[in-house]
Amino acid sequence: MNERDIINLLHGEAASERNSLVLGIGDDCAVIEKSPEQYWLVTMDTLVETVHFDPLWHPAEKIGRKAVAVNVSDIAAMGGTPKFIFLSLALPADFDRNWLQQFTKGIKGSCQEYECILAGGDTVKSPAGIVITITVIGEVESKKTLYRKNARPGDKVWVSGFLGQAAAGLELCRTRKKYKNEPALQLLVESHLNPQPRVKLGLMLAQSGLVHSMMDLSDGLASDLAHICEQSGVGAVIDSAKLPLGVPLQQAAQMLGIDSIELMITGGEDYELIFTAPTGSRQHLDTIALESGINLSCIGEITKGQGVQIRKHVTGDDDHRLIDITFAGFDHFQSS
Amino acid sequence: MNERDIINLLHGEAASERNSLVLGIGDDCAVIEKSPEQYWLVTMDTLVETVHFDPLWHPAEKIGRKAVAVNVSDIAAMGGTPKFIFLSLALPADFDRNWLQQFTKGIKGSCQEYECILAGGDTVKSPAGIVITITVIGEVESKKTLYRKNARPGDKVWVSGFLGQAAAGLELCRTRKKYKNEPALQLLVESHLNPQPRVKLGLMLAQSGLVHSMMDLSDGLASDLAHICEQSGVGAVIDSAKLPLGVPLQQAAQMLGIDSIELMITGGEDYELIFTAPTGSRQHLDTIALESGINLSCIGEITKGQGVQIRKHVTGDDDHRLIDITFAGFDHFQSS
Repeated sequence: MNERDIINLLHGEAASERNSLVLGIGDDCAVIEKSPEQYWLVTMDTLVETVHFDPLWHPAEKIGRKAVAVNVSDIAAMGGTPKFIFLSLALPADFDRNWLQQFTKGIKGSCQEYECILAGGDTVKSPAGIVITITVIGEVESKKTLYRKNARPGDKVWVSGFLGQAAAGLELCRTRKKYKNEPALQLLVESHLNPQPRVKLGLMLAQSGLVHSMMDLSDGLASDLAHICEQSGVGAVIDSAKLPLGVPLQQAAQMLGIDSIELMITGGEDYELIFTAPTGSRQHLDTIALESGINLSCIGEITKGQGVQIRKHVTGDDDHRLIDITFAGFDHFQSS
Repeated sequence: MNERDIINLLHGEAASERNSLVLGIGDDCAVIEKSPEQYWLVTMDTLVETVHFDPLWHPAEKIGRKAVAVNVSDIAAMGGTPKFIFLSLALPADFDRNWLQQFTKGIKGSCQEYECILAGGDTVKSPAGIVITITVIGEVESKKTLYRKNARPGDKVWVSGFLGQAAAGLELCRTRKKYKNEPALQLLVESHLNPQPRVKLGLMLAQSGLVHSMMDLSDGLASDLAHICEQSGVGAVIDSAKLPLGVPLQQAAQMLGIDSIELMITGGEDYELIFTAPTGSRQHLDTIALESGINLSCIGEITKGQGVQIRKHVTGDDDHRLIDITFAGFDHFQSS
């Protein structure tokens, strides 16, 4: 039984969309109507000690920041702005007061950065390990809201930033590689410890009116794009040569013998945005990339088929192979 | 460092009340303006295995029901109606599929009962034990919203139902008393396993226009009334003879040698409502009790002082003693 099975069991009977619920399960956020012009976005994510973070090498302040960031990223993924944060913190009885102070500093710093308010929550005792659950409520113009379900055949697939960096950083932390004197490796580690959700970019993309569908990259490209395809009733073909490989991952791959393509396809937690837009959007998107200072890469296209395939070029040949990568990636209940 | 210290550290700088946030930390729910006539209420509560429930004697379906109930109770405590539920579930890798099915049944049953929709959440792996966090969003008429902060000297203090029953039930479960053939004890156990939040009563009280301040009884009378006093800048005197002692607790006290007064004062998790209303409200409140089918008891009065005191009658004497019980009760970080 994997994570998707559990979600299906919990939400098997699709929530009847009555009242002011515009959209329940199945996207980055639930969407609730505030007024005909304005929607609330609601998301909830949990970080568990040893599963999602290890206090041995993850500074408390950055755990606090990340707990906010992964939720804020869901708001960004629908073109919204985060407003209110609710924090539930389960702490062992013998928790370290300094840890809590640094963690709190991270939470508050993030709230300030994203201009949200910590508006409530709960504090409970945990028998073993820290568990952090955050709910974020955000706002979005109803007509500008971006969903997963509207990708159309012919759309180009775009991603922001560089892929696979957070997964490489996690690997460096896990294997206790010495990275302090290597700026490239440090940057990868920082991508894992302190991800930067793309709130402003998400807002610019939503305002542009160009984007058909969008979500954030939390479980990895193969898995997340498969969600867009599944919900839009389409397929996607990605070109491996077009995946945005940043210099740090390129260097790390050489130094450590990491397969960078594999990491860019299945590595989770980049918290970049993936979106689809019709052909002819390139010029406008290049301007947005320039204005936001964030790299935008066209990595493939939406097809009439189903599932996600990657086009891998065969070395020394003009030919290529298509490999199915639908939902390849990590699952909390299957991977270690 | 107790739970209140942790909350103070987390929320030390009071959230600046800007945007549409009507009220942040410090009440049963955060209050967000939907429109001038309508507010959203948001609450978040976590239940941790071995701290808040023990699957050995707490059936999975009732754990699901209780996880919803304790949150719905916060909505009821402000006079609101629950609308949307968000569930984050941390499960050990080797969780029992049957457990999850029964738990899900409890969550869905409660949603149906309270007419809310399960609209989102998260499912993650836990290294040890189940952790359940629920966020509930509810709705309330802005002018009917009941806060903790408006108790006034001269108000009478009222509670719904009977007190101390859930704590007695927990004690029965913990000590593995045989209660199956004793209907009175079974009822106490049920109060702990499957609490019934007072949604309809909360709504009736809010609509009545009589009530000055209200909250739900989760940590125990002494502790919860102390919150009302602290936030209203008043004191309270409770009359021990007026505490609503139900027949089951009375019987259990005799059979098991439990101090029923102590349990009614400090026992947590009754999820009854405590509220204050001016003198002269009795007739109207008696009608509400009759219509709702829920016992309402006047147990004391609000004073100009501070803290919570209990008036204990000395046996064989017309005299009485006043004992300070401010914040007496349980604290997750202090009690076992």
